Amino acid sequence: MHTIPQGRFIVLDGPEGSGKSTQLRLLVDAIQKQNVPFLSVRDPGSTRIGERIRAILLDPDHAELSMRCEMLLYMAARAQMMSQMILPALNEGKLVLCDRFVSSTLAYQSGGEGLTDDQIRAVADVAIQHRRPDLVLLLDIAPERSFQRLQRAKDRIEQRPLSYHAQVRENYLKQARQDPDHHRVIPADRDIETVHKEILAAIGPIGS
Amino acid sequence: MHTIPQGRFIVLDGPEGSGKSTQLRLLVDAIQKQNVPFLSVRDPGSTRIGERIRAILLDPDHAELSMRCEMLLYMAARAQMMSQMILPALNEGKLVLCDRFVSSTLAYQSGGEGLTDDQIRAVADVAIQHRRPDLVLLLDIAPERSFQRLQRAKDRIEQRPLSYHAQVRENYLKQARQDPDHHRVIPADRDIETVHKEILAAIGPIGS
Repeated sequence: MHTIPQGRFIVLDGPEGSGKSTQLRLLVDAIQKQNVPFLSVRDPGSTRIGERIRAILLDPDHAELSMRCEMLLYMAARAQMMSQMILPALNEGKLVLCDRFVSSTLAYQSGGEGLTDDQIRAVADVAIQHRRPDLVLLLDIAPERSFQRLQRAKDRIEQRPLSYHAQVRENYLKQARQDPDHHRVIPADRDIETVHKEILAAIGPIGS
Repeated sequence: MHTIPQGRFIVLDGPEGSGKSTQLRLLVDAIQKQNVPFLSVRDPGSTRIGERIRAILLDPDHAELSMRCEMLLYMAARAQMMSQMILPALNEGKLVLCDRFVSSTLAYQSGGEGLTDDQIRAVADVAIQHRRPDLVLLLDIAPERSFQRLQRAKDRIEQRPLSYHAQVRENYLKQARQDPDHHRVIPADRDIETVHKEILAAIGPIGS
């Protein structure tokens, strides 16, 4: 029997205004130049069902949405994307690049209404069938700076107070401290090309 | 300090075509005659956000919906209903009557795509904040009979094969065997009044 080729699963995460979209685009360009088979997805979304869930999550009118419901909706969208797109791609040996993932839930929902990291991880492992990312790249920036960089109206979650976003940042950094082998913190308040080069260095050889 | 009055949490569950809607209406009538403060809800749904989730779940066009995504969407709707409606009502000492609940997820989603009862219960306890129902009334009927009684087009889940629905029935009965103190099986393939009386007897004095 042949061993099944297993692709590499890389997540790019960080707050809005951290330059995540720009860096994702540059990274996809770099991967395409290597002629490596890959899949690029965004969480929540990417699947038809995930996009319907995303619309509920980001609707600024849903002020009553509870933290647990919010967390479970993210996990539902993730479960669909995992079974429909990410796992099949990894099984084909593809490189999978994901914009946000469980790391976002641990950053944004942990501590809200008594939700703990352990509860979120327990639900996540059911949702993602225990296939955690090989590498999570965390774009780190102070919320005061990231909001200065934001060029559009804030969505339901971005409208929360600065103290909330300071806690989100700390929740990201905590994940990197707890599991340094699978996380890399990239200071994001620098010029685009410098950040891009650091992301490429963290990922290592793409074609191998 | 006074102790907080804790209401009673009763779930009515069973397959479509078991007479659940009729029995729920009769039970609500009986409760109203007792002048007891109560809340009647349906799962999934009842909240504005829950109804949007319900629409995704029951859309017959969503053939690709994975079992884990389905399970998590039910839990998300449940979490919202729990924090927004059920827990506040129970804290006010109300009787809460719920059409379907975690028992439905254990019946319909367990075993699908490797999902276990333990995984569903782990996610459920996060969603419902560990407040399990005091009593789950299970309307039991063979799927051959319940589908004969169904007077409308089948939805996405009802369209699954008979073998699936036979397993759903067994999954309901298993819950009653595993936790007889909090479950009561009511044979549902009998006349409406007989079933209603048995439900009232199972609940016991409503006004107390």
